[in-house]
Amino acid sequence: MELATLQDVIERTYGARDRARGVPSTVAWLAEELGELAQAVRKGTPEQEAHEFADVLAWVASLANQMGIDLTTAIARYATGCPRCHDLPCSCP
Amino acid sequence: MELATLQDVIERTYGARDRARGVPSTVAWLAEELGELAQAVRKGTPEQEAHEFADVLAWVASLANQMGIDLTTAIARYATGCPRCHDLPCSCP
Repeated sequence: MELATLQDVIERTYGARDRARGVPSTVAWLAEELGELAQAVRKGTPEQEAHEFADVLAWVASLANQMGIDLTTAIARYATGCPRCHDLPCSCP
Repeated sequence: MELATLQDVIERTYGARDRARGVPSTVAWLAEELGELAQAVRKGTPEQEAHEFADVLAWVASLANQMGIDLTTAIARYATGCPRCHDLPCSCP
């Protein structure tokens, strides 16, 4: 899935509700989902892991939508390798 | 950018190094980056916000790579609306 598609479907599915709750609530919810992902990675099944990865991505997309951030533009700095050393693979010390 | 492309470029850029550090270190680093995103959202510039969104996505991709999770498959449950109520927009209570 394209990041732009993800942002679009999350906006249409949850945009109005998430905006009504506000940015701090979205940050809190994203933090909660990251905790659930950490737990799934530690002791979950592959299905639980996939579920939590998706939830984290959905909340990242919702937060980006609220902040007016285009994730496709944002991630472009990683498109050709490490944004710090500009090497692929990364050669940062 | 496609999620599969993101996972591929992150694997080629950081895969060997991140795997050598291990999953718990990747979870810790992702948590650190989420903190930086939360701070950027609270008081950063749009450029800082975009930077931190990208870093969070990169670490999510690295963790997914290490866990053998395909993010494209994982996010498919959101592709047609809310995975709980199956509505678009979401109508969950």
